Amino acid sequence: MSTSFTMIGGEGRNSYQEHSKYQGALVIAAKEKVNEAISMKLDIDFTSNLVNIADFGCSSGPNTFTAVQNIIDAVENKYKKESTIDGIEFQVFFNDSSNNDFNTLFKTLPPARRYFATGVPASFFGRVLPRNSLHVGVSSYSLHFVSKIPKEIKDRDSPVWNQDIHCSGSSKEVTKLFLDQYKIDLGSFLNARAQELVYGGLLLILGSCRPNGVQMFETVEGMMIDFIGSSLNEIANQGLIDQQKLDTFKLPIYAPQADELKQIIEDNGCFTIEVFEKISHSKGEYPLDPEFLTVSFKVTVGGSVASIFGQDAMEKTYELVKEKTQEMLPQLAKAKPGMQYLIVLRRN
Amino acid sequence: MSTSFTMIGGEGRNSYQEHSKYQGALVIAAKEKVNEAISMKLDIDFTSNLVNIADFGCSSGPNTFTAVQNIIDAVENKYKKESTIDGIEFQVFFNDSSNNDFNTLFKTLPPARRYFATGVPASFFGRVLPRNSLHVGVSSYSLHFVSKIPKEIKDRDSPVWNQDIHCSGSSKEVTKLFLDQYKIDLGSFLNARAQELVYGGLLLILGSCRPNGVQMFETVEGMMIDFIGSSLNEIANQGLIDQQKLDTFKLPIYAPQADELKQIIEDNGCFTIEVFEKISHSKGEYPLDPEFLTVSFKVTVGGSVASIFGQDAMEKTYELVKEKTQEMLPQLAKAKPGMQYLIVLRRN
Repeated sequence: MSTSFTMIGGEGRNSYQEHSKYQGALVIAAKEKVNEAISMKLDIDFTSNLVNIADFGCSSGPNTFTAVQNIIDAVENKYKKESTIDGIEFQVFFNDSSNNDFNTLFKTLPPARRYFATGVPASFFGRVLPRNSLHVGVSSYSLHFVSKIPKEIKDRDSPVWNQDIHCSGSSKEVTKLFLDQYKIDLGSFLNARAQELVYGGLLLILGSCRPNGVQMFETVEGMMIDFIGSSLNEIANQGLIDQQKLDTFKLPIYAPQADELKQIIEDNGCFTIEVFEKISHSKGEYPLDPEFLTVSFKVTVGGSVASIFGQDAMEKTYELVKEKTQEMLPQLAKAKPGMQYLIVLRRN
Repeated sequence: MSTSFTMIGGEGRNSYQEHSKYQGALVIAAKEKVNEAISMKLDIDFTSNLVNIADFGCSSGPNTFTAVQNIIDAVENKYKKESTIDGIEFQVFFNDSSNNDFNTLFKTLPPARRYFATGVPASFFGRVLPRNSLHVGVSSYSLHFVSKIPKEIKDRDSPVWNQDIHCSGSSKEVTKLFLDQYKIDLGSFLNARAQELVYGGLLLILGSCRPNGVQMFETVEGMMIDFIGSSLNEIANQGLIDQQKLDTFKLPIYAPQADELKQIIEDNGCFTIEVFEKISHSKGEYPLDPEFLTVSFKVTVGGSVASIFGQDAMEKTYELVKEKTQEMLPQLAKAKPGMQYLIVLRRN
């Protein structure tokens, strides 16, 4: 299995474009705090009259446009008081892996934007921009990916073979292997960004993690992915997909606990943590609507399922997922809440 | 008719990717001269340890990769003698309009590249990069476009209505209107590049133009486009496409005469002309092969035809084009040669 994991592109009914309002709500809710952080903590000089902004893991839009516009507004707001902003130009680097749908991203760029837009097709676990060239970076709902799946957990004959299609938290050994990989990957991400950012530049990270002590299988996200796993098992039993293929199908996702996330950033040492906050917003918890939940986990996880098992199998899987979601609404109602966070890091 | 004009994307049999070897041959032939120009004329400082390179009108590849690699090789070659090159990083901006197939471009980036790749979706008749940010720009086979078609020539009732689908040179009035628009557009291109380039930065322009005194209809290119026009007329007569639509269908192309090109650059005044040369290369003249010629003008012009008249009409048109090309081989053999050029401009 390729560990690349891309949102469903295009602008269609089942695209990420259409169904990323949940993720977008966090971007909107964090606007004031982003403004505050940039106002208080950003410390850059304008000798080149250019402010470079990047979104790491931008997907095909449209949340990325809101995220970068919030940053531009905040930078303008900060520096207009100092009347140094005249003649400043903004350049925005939209980064995602090279199989992201950049064509859709580019066609839907806000027509009235006041920045130079560029796309950067490369893995954000490595360098994607020149040294000391970036003033403010942002990454929304991207830092729950691992760059590869620990080999042992894909091997049916291994003692730590993972029965689930993700790191559900039901096995301590599996969780440890995922966490080890996550530490490596987040460390690589932070090292790369530290090289790209100028001194005093900021890195904003938005996303969802687990509150301390909460296991993935206790959350709505974890339950939904478990429904996808059990649905895949059902259609494998029906002979519609290959069981051996399914045994090795694991999502490259690890949702860290809040303290794990904090610890990895502190251990990395390239950044000062300026903000590490739980953000509450109107869409912070998923509505208990089987249709909504199913589609939400289709635009994000469905692409991976389709790329391995084919489009038909994916559609069948999600029919079952919807049924299970309907049946399990009482359990979903008792799920432990996740945590939406904003982290602001300043490059040391 | 939209005046956007995009090469056929993807990597298929009829894509620009597959059929741009003619254009690529000029890029290869010009390598030594580009190396020489950069060695003698590029005069930039490396305070930021970053060299920014851009290709304006990059299409979906692969010629753009050769063009930018030639520039990187030349810059490394120049500065390694001065041992200032250590630690220098390269960033490459691939620019084309937002309906270019960037997904294909990004998926086919050279895996071993030693530069940061970015895509810039915007019209190069305006600014696409920040002020004073660019060290070397290149544009290959892009500066024969006009941003819009003079209105009068599309109006069947106008005294200067253009019977041909392009500026064939058969009408002085039509040619003057095209040239007027071309002057505006090339001027806009040069003004934008002058703002983007640092002082002492270079702009390399490769392409084909007409030798002085040669009319478009006397060249292979002009004849081939005339065959497309007469083929479209035939299928309009058969009722397969709308005659009124065809009356207004004009390609946004103007191939300037060498002296016109030179004069516009001089009048603009932002640049010093360092090199203005005819380049001869093995593929300088089209081979007299109906199949090759037909496909060459399909990947470039066919997309426009298909977008206006539909895919079926386009395919039918090109069947007729191939027949006409076969019949007219003796005339094509007597065509006047075009001119492939390299222009090197240094920002004043």
